[in-house]
Amino acid sequence: MKISLSTCQKAVKSIDKYSLYVPKSGVFPQGFKAGSLASGVKKNGNLDLGIILNTNKSRPSTAAAVFTTNKFKAAPVLLSKKVLDISGGEGVDAIVVNSGCANAVTGDVGLQDAKQMVGVVNKKIGSENATLVMSTGVIGQRLQMAKISSGIDQIFDADKFGDDHESWLNLAKSICTTDTFPKLITSKFKLPSGTEYTLTGMAKGAGMICPNMATLLGFIVTDLPIKSNALQSMLSSAVTRSFNCISVDGDMSTNDTICMLANGAVDTAVVDVTSPEYEQIKDQVTSFAQRLAQLVVRDGEGATKFVTVNVKNALNFADARVMAEAISNSMLVKTALYGQDANWGRILCAIGYAKLGDVASLDQSKINVSFVSTDGSEPRELKLIVDGVPQLDVDEERASQILSLPDLEVLVDLGTGKEECQFWTCDLTQEYVTINGDYRS
Amino acid sequence: MKISLSTCQKAVKSIDKYSLYVPKSGVFPQGFKAGSLASGVKKNGNLDLGIILNTNKSRPSTAAAVFTTNKFKAAPVLLSKKVLDISGGEGVDAIVVNSGCANAVTGDVGLQDAKQMVGVVNKKIGSENATLVMSTGVIGQRLQMAKISSGIDQIFDADKFGDDHESWLNLAKSICTTDTFPKLITSKFKLPSGTEYTLTGMAKGAGMICPNMATLLGFIVTDLPIKSNALQSMLSSAVTRSFNCISVDGDMSTNDTICMLANGAVDTAVVDVTSPEYEQIKDQVTSFAQRLAQLVVRDGEGATKFVTVNVKNALNFADARVMAEAISNSMLVKTALYGQDANWGRILCAIGYAKLGDVASLDQSKINVSFVSTDGSEPRELKLIVDGVPQLDVDEERASQILSLPDLEVLVDLGTGKEECQFWTCDLTQEYVTINGDYRS
Repeated sequence: MKISLSTCQKAVKSIDKYSLYVPKSGVFPQGFKAGSLASGVKKNGNLDLGIILNTNKSRPSTAAAVFTTNKFKAAPVLLSKKVLDISGGEGVDAIVVNSGCANAVTGDVGLQDAKQMVGVVNKKIGSENATLVMSTGVIGQRLQMAKISSGIDQIFDADKFGDDHESWLNLAKSICTTDTFPKLITSKFKLPSGTEYTLTGMAKGAGMICPNMATLLGFIVTDLPIKSNALQSMLSSAVTRSFNCISVDGDMSTNDTICMLANGAVDTAVVDVTSPEYEQIKDQVTSFAQRLAQLVVRDGEGATKFVTVNVKNALNFADARVMAEAISNSMLVKTALYGQDANWGRILCAIGYAKLGDVASLDQSKINVSFVSTDGSEPRELKLIVDGVPQLDVDEERASQILSLPDLEVLVDLGTGKEECQFWTCDLTQEYVTINGDYRS
Repeated sequence: MKISLSTCQKAVKSIDKYSLYVPKSGVFPQGFKAGSLASGVKKNGNLDLGIILNTNKSRPSTAAAVFTTNKFKAAPVLLSKKVLDISGGEGVDAIVVNSGCANAVTGDVGLQDAKQMVGVVNKKIGSENATLVMSTGVIGQRLQMAKISSGIDQIFDADKFGDDHESWLNLAKSICTTDTFPKLITSKFKLPSGTEYTLTGMAKGAGMICPNMATLLGFIVTDLPIKSNALQSMLSSAVTRSFNCISVDGDMSTNDTICMLANGAVDTAVVDVTSPEYEQIKDQVTSFAQRLAQLVVRDGEGATKFVTVNVKNALNFADARVMAEAISNSMLVKTALYGQDANWGRILCAIGYAKLGDVASLDQSKINVSFVSTDGSEPRELKLIVDGVPQLDVDEERASQILSLPDLEVLVDLGTGKEECQFWTCDLTQEYVTINGDYRS
């Protein structure tokens, strides 16, 4: 079976990622529904417009978001930021998203278009500052507002909403650009108090994949009641350890946005940062966000390997992250992984040029570097550098076994502290160059 | 004519870089000689050991160097630093360099080996702290000291030194690893006072090209008399605008070193930072170093294009450089250049995520981005963004003409100040991945 191309234009691998990573059923949070359709912005007639709508009216919903730090922020990013500022993250009941056009570098008219998009949804649900907007696709082109407005109308008027698996999956498809599979996950959690709640998330591919295409987008919705400041701090913390710990090509787009809605449909006390269960929920949201972010790496253009870079026993998280990122972004490390080369020299080199906040984070005589298998085979850990000393008798056969795995781990033990950071990256292949070197068409 | 592979193992292009970039004759500085031979460290029998020797005894020579900022510094880097510290950059009469083994991540024994290498040369020339050492090649292996010691002996005892073009070219060949051509340039300069002097420079490839290969090395020698502190400040300034403004893959090795010797063989007043001609000489050394650094980019693995990224009218040099570097290192920009895609979105995006020192360096409404032809064809400048507004009617035919040139310029006019930085980069091709994904062999 080949990868389904129903919403996704490009199949770069024979590995069947669609059947591996796309769920066939799921349980979704109470009080949300998802609607999508093909507005005609995408020329191929695929789904390109979606809305997540909160229908729970028992309590006001809350919203939080983390936006790109790129100095060129696209219109939908600027507007969504403003909506959150004005609303204080309360009473946000909808997210509207389109693919095919990023509404980026479009100036004032772009901002007007984004406002109109939000305005149409606000009008339908009868409230102000109630809608976040996201766009992904070609940069520097205006939104086709006639198609988008009429599409939003249709989703509401013809009630294209649903709360079943198909509706959510279609929504995940509608945000795809050159992704080879839609990224949707959903999980039910139980807290010690007995309260059960659900997280549903979706994302679209990083790597500014197709020429002029942009954006990493992610959405997480939950039926827990969470105060807006608690939701924001929870999401910020989760993103730091998930979406900000992935690398496909190290480029950060003008549209990157991860947002979260909590509608309080579960009948329990509102979660605040001082709530006894706050930390546990934060951890659950973090690992959920990590699963979602990892799917983005798995769909990295041309990638044949999913690599976890684990920097542990670091003096602080920030420096662990800086080193994990340097390794994950190094073109030489990424090509070595592709070439299945146990090239610890390149890993060490990347660690050496990482811009540390504290020089004490790195002590040459304490560093250990290993490759770690993830398929249960032994020995799990193959040591390349022990206490700063390169192992000259590395078992090359075992190295080549581990490096031929589609999933593997690079483990760096700094031995200078107790913090750790995991980063997820992929290899760099000729196929990446081919995809990204294609002329815009 | 094909690329000569006499010292260089890999020909990745049909373009005849050897005949384009390797000089067939030259005038060299007075009072220096160059010696090289095949010591046997390189298995293929190519030149792999070289010595630059000052023979002018009219004045003490001076030396300066700029070393890698990688936290893992190779033994020759640590030792050469020490030699400069102890000698104060005076009386340094030799540079000994080997290829085939980088003597990096070799610990104390590596440092002993480097000391022995320097010791053999010092003994031959009869003075202490008179020799700098550089190594390039495989990381994590010990130098084969028997071969190297005996090679140094032979260069002196059999007088393998010469001051002619062939001797200098052979020296340039002896530092090659996977370079496809040796990098040697030499120029004569005349100062307003009438004084004539010569600069000769050589370098070896950046990009930690072959698996486990490392290092950018560069040497510049001159017959001007220059005080050691003036030489150091001149070289540091030149490197900031030359070797620190090139990108092949953004990886910085453990061995990177650029050094300079001045032997004072030209009979003129010693140049100090306060000398009337200091600034002019510094500018000449800077543009000379730029020419040398550019050769390294021209030999970038798999590269088909040489691209000048020119960020002008910036508030300060540092931010101009940070932006030029972000563009030059972006995998998406590099693949777009390869794909001959006028993709200003990726350029803007890279500018947007560059880590600026001063936010005022970037004003969206003032930015201009163009592609510039370098072959004399008109219109020379093709504007993509004017005062922050993307040009939607870009002449695609002209864009494709400019982008098909082997040499071209990306011009970013920030309009926020008067400083500028030029950075040199190459495109990213499937061939790069192939070269760097090869298993160590």
